[in-house]
Amino acid sequence: MALIPELIEALRRLPGVGQKTAQRMAFHLLERDRPAAISLSRTLIAAAEGIKRCARCRNLTELEICTLCSNAQRDASLMCVVESPSDLQAIEIATGYRGHYFVLHGKLSPIEGLGPRELGFELLTQHLSEGIITELIVATNPTIEGEATAHFLRELCSAGGIRCTRIAHGVPMGGELEYIDRSTLAHAFHARG
Amino acid sequence: MALIPELIEALRRLPGVGQKTAQRMAFHLLERDRPAAISLSRTLIAAAEGIKRCARCRNLTELEICTLCSNAQRDASLMCVVESPSDLQAIEIATGYRGHYFVLHGKLSPIEGLGPRELGFELLTQHLSEGIITELIVATNPTIEGEATAHFLRELCSAGGIRCTRIAHGVPMGGELEYIDRSTLAHAFHARG
Repeated sequence: MALIPELIEALRRLPGVGQKTAQRMAFHLLERDRPAAISLSRTLIAAAEGIKRCARCRNLTELEICTLCSNAQRDASLMCVVESPSDLQAIEIATGYRGHYFVLHGKLSPIEGLGPRELGFELLTQHLSEGIITELIVATNPTIEGEATAHFLRELCSAGGIRCTRIAHGVPMGGELEYIDRSTLAHAFHARG
Repeated sequence: MALIPELIEALRRLPGVGQKTAQRMAFHLLERDRPAAISLSRTLIAAAEGIKRCARCRNLTELEICTLCSNAQRDASLMCVVESPSDLQAIEIATGYRGHYFVLHGKLSPIEGLGPRELGFELLTQHLSEGIITELIVATNPTIEGEATAHFLRELCSAGGIRCTRIAHGVPMGGELEYIDRSTLAHAFHARG
């Protein structure tokens, strides 16, 4: 294949990028910003080859232990469990949370072949047994699989005598009751406090 | 900088990609599609270093003479002048045009420092003087600068006794008169035929 169609094809593999957008990106880089193309190329290969999972929290990092885990300023008695690195990122940006994290890279899903082993529950159990963590905050998504995962985590905690909390679900701030879906509203109503 | 923020930063230099999208792209590549990251990296560097301008038509290509120029099946008596490689692409896809092209890589714009020299008019004049081209189709954009460029090209043609045509401008197919801007409608009305 010629180089330009090949570049367009490669750009199309980015999420949310179709034929037209990929074409616009390719021509932009070639016509106006070759240094950007070169620096993106270098960073992509460095990231694809260098980024692994943190040995403690399984977050993506190029280090053996990520900067969140090795930060002594953070509260080691709290651990927040998330499904993905982007969920972790969202919590870091939105909340003032200063504890540790644990990234599952998925949720319990027999269909996708994701069980306790794939989600790193063994490593998590090990952390919980160290006697440092006092609260496990479960921030999995409020989907059926996310809830099943949360249930599993709750059992893990009760076995170790650790407090297990779940982030609150309900009507989003600024949302209007009239337009909220029924299951969210029902949940918000029953979970009132 | 750590590798992940660096990757997000590099992705943000793509046109139309903001912080959120870049983040989503980075996590998608790292979590789910590292082969895509590697192939994109390879193609980017190959394209940034290998793609030059065709010596005849100035279109982007990794060859000395692009496949459009070297295709003997195409009609060498027709030459279509476009502002950019993406305009060329659009014409190739939408029309049945089988002549040659000439890519200006811009339009006459003293403010941007683009004059006849930067747009390759010398090379174009050379092509016109070879006695093969009988019609020059001007497909610059209907902006002030695009029109000025078209005017310049018309003069170039009349000096060489070559027919110079301009792609038609008017109400787009499927467009409604009521919603068309005034200048387009006025042009369409006066250019009726």
